[in-house]
Amino acid sequence: MEILQNFMGPGAIETMKRINENGNVVGTIIVNSEGFPETTTLDSLTAATYSTHLRTLSHLASNALKEIDVMDDLVALRLVSRKAEAVVAPDPEFHLIVVMRRK
Amino acid sequence: MEILQNFMGPGAIETMKRINENGNVVGTIIVNSEGFPETTTLDSLTAATYSTHLRTLSHLASNALKEIDVMDDLVALRLVSRKAEAVVAPDPEFHLIVVMRRK
Repeated sequence: MEILQNFMGPGAIETMKRINENGNVVGTIIVNSEGFPETTTLDSLTAATYSTHLRTLSHLASNALKEIDVMDDLVALRLVSRKAEAVVAPDPEFHLIVVMRRK
Repeated sequence: MEILQNFMGPGAIETMKRINENGNVVGTIIVNSEGFPETTTLDSLTAATYSTHLRTLSHLASNALKEIDVMDDLVALRLVSRKAEAVVAPDPEFHLIVVMRRK
């Protein structure tokens, strides 16, 4: 809960509550700057697997974008698979991951 | 044009024409299985940079998904940045990349 309070601004707890109550959302993960899933609604193995991979993908995507346009920044990365969608939003202090069912 | 005719099915040329005529689309790239941008509407340097990075990201994302659910498959990967959006759709024979302006 430390990241939520310290880095995500006053309305963050409410916002996370609303995201988690959305029927399409399977789960959320807040990954700290060391890659540890600090807060999650998923089981720890799934959270750790998503955290490790999506954090790496997010860093690689950011680097790729810098090579294309040094003035551009990654806002979000979305993995669409047959069964689900995972969105990772990067921040210097944390990564927010939201996993949803495919509509 | 080889991939378009051999692997992307009869309507592919028309579909690519329609995508390229969309005002939001900055450019498209069809990357062959060796990672070479075979057909593109972008300049060759930009096409090569996008092809190299998005193909790597797409492979990593596919592997990540297999660790989470071995029965799942990547359908598309979307990079949303401040200035643009790039979507890569993987296929065993090629990768289709579409670069769009941010709405």
